[in-house]
Amino acid sequence: MTSQENAPEAVIGRAGSYEKGVARRQEILDRAIEVFRERGAGGTSLRSIAQSIGVSHAALLHYFDSREQLLVAVYERAEGQRDTSGDAAESALDVLVKAAMINVGVPGMVELYTSLVAASLAAEGTPSNEFFSARFARIRDELTQRLTAEQAAGRLRGDVEPADMAALLIAASDGLQIQWLLEPSVQLERTLETFSILLAPTS
Amino acid sequence: MTSQENAPEAVIGRAGSYEKGVARRQEILDRAIEVFRERGAGGTSLRSIAQSIGVSHAALLHYFDSREQLLVAVYERAEGQRDTSGDAAESALDVLVKAAMINVGVPGMVELYTSLVAASLAAEGTPSNEFFSARFARIRDELTQRLTAEQAAGRLRGDVEPADMAALLIAASDGLQIQWLLEPSVQLERTLETFSILLAPTS
Repeated sequence: MTSQENAPEAVIGRAGSYEKGVARRQEILDRAIEVFRERGAGGTSLRSIAQSIGVSHAALLHYFDSREQLLVAVYERAEGQRDTSGDAAESALDVLVKAAMINVGVPGMVELYTSLVAASLAAEGTPSNEFFSARFARIRDELTQRLTAEQAAGRLRGDVEPADMAALLIAASDGLQIQWLLEPSVQLERTLETFSILLAPTS
Repeated sequence: MTSQENAPEAVIGRAGSYEKGVARRQEILDRAIEVFRERGAGGTSLRSIAQSIGVSHAALLHYFDSREQLLVAVYERAEGQRDTSGDAAESALDVLVKAAMINVGVPGMVELYTSLVAASLAAEGTPSNEFFSARFARIRDELTQRLTAEQAAGRLRGDVEPADMAALLIAASDGLQIQWLLEPSVQLERTLETFSILLAPTS
């Protein structure tokens, strides 16, 4: 009986500490985002990340199993904080250009993105591999839907596959952000916008 | 006088050991290429790279100042061993597609490329930053020249900037190789070849 009587409080207690844990985890991620804003986390160990965001190595390991898991969580949270989703009326290209211009304003996040994508290629089943496989699939699907609708409405040339174009647009945007960060004379926005010429309906 | 008399021999001696050094350095790079062929060097320390390619940590440090310098040298040598340069008659797109198809046959090199590009974004003046800034500039120039010639010959639509298209083609190829490695249902070759439709002269 005692255990039953105590159960609700115990549950509340657990829920309370669970919520505290979630809040603490998000606080750690937000501090990491600040630290990585200018430069990504390139080459730094979990221990030195802990130091630079001002938490103990042990605390970091309490919330994240590995450096990679932490970095994926940082990227995911940073992305969630930016509103890069377009409304239904926007074209695939407009959504993409808007997201790219937001990204390059935070060079450390482009670097973090690129290094995590590189890590995702190393082995299946790792945190970065699962995150980026799912993320690319989701964004390709979203853009494919927009492009299919644009093609049906006669706003996209009819002789290309929407799914291919979705992959191509994402690839071009990812690659151009990198080239622009290395060489600002590369015309990121203008070059991406060229797709509006390339993809225009042929008359 | 003695030093003058000895000079030619000393020079030959130095040249000999210099040549031996060059050969040894290339041997190390070739072994690293073999080790990294399937998986890149992701996350491994210089010490563990030394172990996996079967040389001492000290020997590796004799030839390379840092892990990053070694990895840039590995990538540079691996790229030099592949003939990805097109002959003068080939179109920019054909050169690009051919290079992409060779690259994805060596997943570890795509991973190494992507992780070094990520590192190159972290700070100016690092080995990866200098290598990739120069490499992107060189490849953009090469493709721009081809595209300019194609435009003059009426084989490329006239309403796009060759320099923008060069950056765009490279970006799309880099990005698509990554997406294809993560999700083989992404149609790498067909999608890149779509550019022959998108860039065709408008009549």
